[in-house]
Amino acid sequence: MNKIDIYWIGKDENDEYREIEKHFLKLSNRYAKVSQTAVINKDILKKQSSGNNISDIQNSYSEALNRYNRNDFYRVVLDPRGKDASTEEFAKIMKNRDKIQFFIGGAYGFSNEFREGANLKLHLSSLTMSHKIAKIVLLEQIYRGLTINSNHPYHK
Amino acid sequence: MNKIDIYWIGKDENDEYREIEKHFLKLSNRYAKVSQTAVINKDILKKQSSGNNISDIQNSYSEALNRYNRNDFYRVVLDPRGKDASTEEFAKIMKNRDKIQFFIGGAYGFSNEFREGANLKLHLSSLTMSHKIAKIVLLEQIYRGLTINSNHPYHK
Repeated sequence: MNKIDIYWIGKDENDEYREIEKHFLKLSNRYAKVSQTAVINKDILKKQSSGNNISDIQNSYSEALNRYNRNDFYRVVLDPRGKDASTEEFAKIMKNRDKIQFFIGGAYGFSNEFREGANLKLHLSSLTMSHKIAKIVLLEQIYRGLTINSNHPYHK
Repeated sequence: MNKIDIYWIGKDENDEYREIEKHFLKLSNRYAKVSQTAVINKDILKKQSSGNNISDIQNSYSEALNRYNRNDFYRVVLDPRGKDASTEEFAKIMKNRDKIQFFIGGAYGFSNEFREGANLKLHLSSLTMSHKIAKIVLLEQIYRGLTINSNHPYHK
């Protein structure tokens, strides 16, 4: 069974987005083990709020995320400058890959180093979305990809 | 004050998406009158469920939406084959346009005729999104666009 782990910079909040996330995680978990981890620490919060320069903030994200990097996983970074993909292309990316990690950056994006270390930079939209909305979009695509790769119809 | 009306094919459901929609509508209504209208009728439901051919289903959407068409509004149709836009470009589309209508199609998209009748075909993402998720993405962009055009910072 596929293992898909999502990491994102932000707090774990019990809000209406969480309900939608749970819905897609439940649907996806028929096909794969999908989990998500909120990544945040004092260094990130301090640097974001005190208006440090962008690269300092990005480096604080990288430092927090680096500990989750697994070389035995296919690593995908969500990046506005990344590859544009249709849902069918997204499904192909997931196909035959047992272990996948997705990383969603914070408000200031990723450092170049972190981005270049990934196997794939993927673009969800040219629009700037809040990380909560980006996560919903990603979770739906993961579910759609899993159903496509299993030849099952998409059910809401 | 700008007037922005969103029309989408679907039922009006009181679910977790609705909470997120209300959040963005409330934020946007500081800058503009933003409203949304769920459009559905028996003909659409019948044609969708009985597996009519796609153009019949699309025509049932068009018929239902046509009565909302207003020539004094700038009419935008969400369309996967439409113009790709960044958030800044999206804001420019809204700028200096007092009255805007956005149309979100049903599961089978729009008829060519309806699409070609619009002032703009706009692409949110190359990914296929449920109409509920597309609506959240659109509502956030409307809010972002309004803040950009008012030189206000984006607040969650």
